[in-house]
Amino acid sequence: MAGTDVAPADALTDLFGLLAYAELMAFFNLSGDAERASSLADKAALGEMAVTEFGHFRGLHDELTRRGAVPEQAMEPFVAALDAFHARTAPADWLESLVKAYVGDGLAADFYRAVAERLEPEARALVLEALADTGHADFVISRVGAAIKADPTRAGRLALWARRLVGEALAQAHRVVADRPSLARLVVGGADQGGPAGGQGEIGRMFARLTDAHDRRLAALGL
Amino acid sequence: MAGTDVAPADALTDLFGLLAYAELMAFFNLSGDAERASSLADKAALGEMAVTEFGHFRGLHDELTRRGAVPEQAMEPFVAALDAFHARTAPADWLESLVKAYVGDGLAADFYRAVAERLEPEARALVLEALADTGHADFVISRVGAAIKADPTRAGRLALWARRLVGEALAQAHRVVADRPSLARLVVGGADQGGPAGGQGEIGRMFARLTDAHDRRLAALGL
Repeated sequence: MAGTDVAPADALTDLFGLLAYAELMAFFNLSGDAERASSLADKAALGEMAVTEFGHFRGLHDELTRRGAVPEQAMEPFVAALDAFHARTAPADWLESLVKAYVGDGLAADFYRAVAERLEPEARALVLEALADTGHADFVISRVGAAIKADPTRAGRLALWARRLVGEALAQAHRVVADRPSLARLVVGGADQGGPAGGQGEIGRMFARLTDAHDRRLAALGL
Repeated sequence: MAGTDVAPADALTDLFGLLAYAELMAFFNLSGDAERASSLADKAALGEMAVTEFGHFRGLHDELTRRGAVPEQAMEPFVAALDAFHARTAPADWLESLVKAYVGDGLAADFYRAVAERLEPEARALVLEALADTGHADFVISRVGAAIKADPTRAGRLALWARRLVGEALAQAHRVVADRPSLARLVVGGADQGGPAGGQGEIGRMFARLTDAHDRRLAALGL
């Protein structure tokens, strides 16, 4: 049961399909945030970020086609989990929406960066490109910071919200890796401490590291 | 009271501001349609069109900046009318939403094409670029055609919906030209039959021509 050096094709199709659908959702969510923004300047800035996410989606979509996969089929296995995550974490207002995008972007970026290390150079470049900073984090930090300054009682509510988001994200992530063993092996590959490659324990340790990084990001938000 | 050969700067700022906000709204509406589409392929196709509209918005936004205007200030006078139009014509379902985008795109394209003839070459190119076909019309004709074939009773409801859209669009357009005399003069400039340049009668005749073109487009939709 040795780890593979080269990711198998079906696992890569899974990875790109998952990332593509996540980017498409990010596009929809950011467009919605842009529409709900109160100033025209914020609408334009968030719209610009949404369009960047769509560009990432397009890159993954085209790469799936290039590899001989049908992009819609590659995304399909992840639709239920990602839709469930979004349905269970519908933001009550614009601030919750910004925090959700920030938390989601951050967790996704850490996850894909960890996975990218294990890919061939070409696939790695594509994944890292999809994580390229859209300027969104700075935007959220500035807007949420200003909102908390204006009304410090918001900090507690938003911190609880961020905890709930991580809980739901982990719940769905565990569902996905349980359903897709080859993706699970790709994700934790020939990784670290003990346990069978792709075992639930190893996955759990990886998610714990992602959660640590998340806590550091929340501190940057003032939560 | 002769027509001017060169459009005055404030009228152009108005025109670009109006067009920019309309494109931003088109981006939001198409993103929403993409999100509500039932298949992943339709989500991707409509998302692509939304991104094209955002590109047009960006071009107009940058041109306003280049001309020394503040884009947000240039859009501001048109926010109330366009928001009112969208609030009064909230689609009840995906089909109504597609028909609305088709009717709106068509009317807007005819309007801007008529105005573009009266602009200097550079401004004209920008306006015509913003009207470049996004492939949206063909998409709507195919989807609405299939939906009516599947259930012919839909045709009557959608035809009524299209009439309402035009009524609301004309109502808001009359409000805008009443508020912005220099824009009204630009729109009907040294145009056709009698009446003072930019007079309400002339505007009315221009809108009537747009409505004729709209009726021909509805026939293409099978309505």
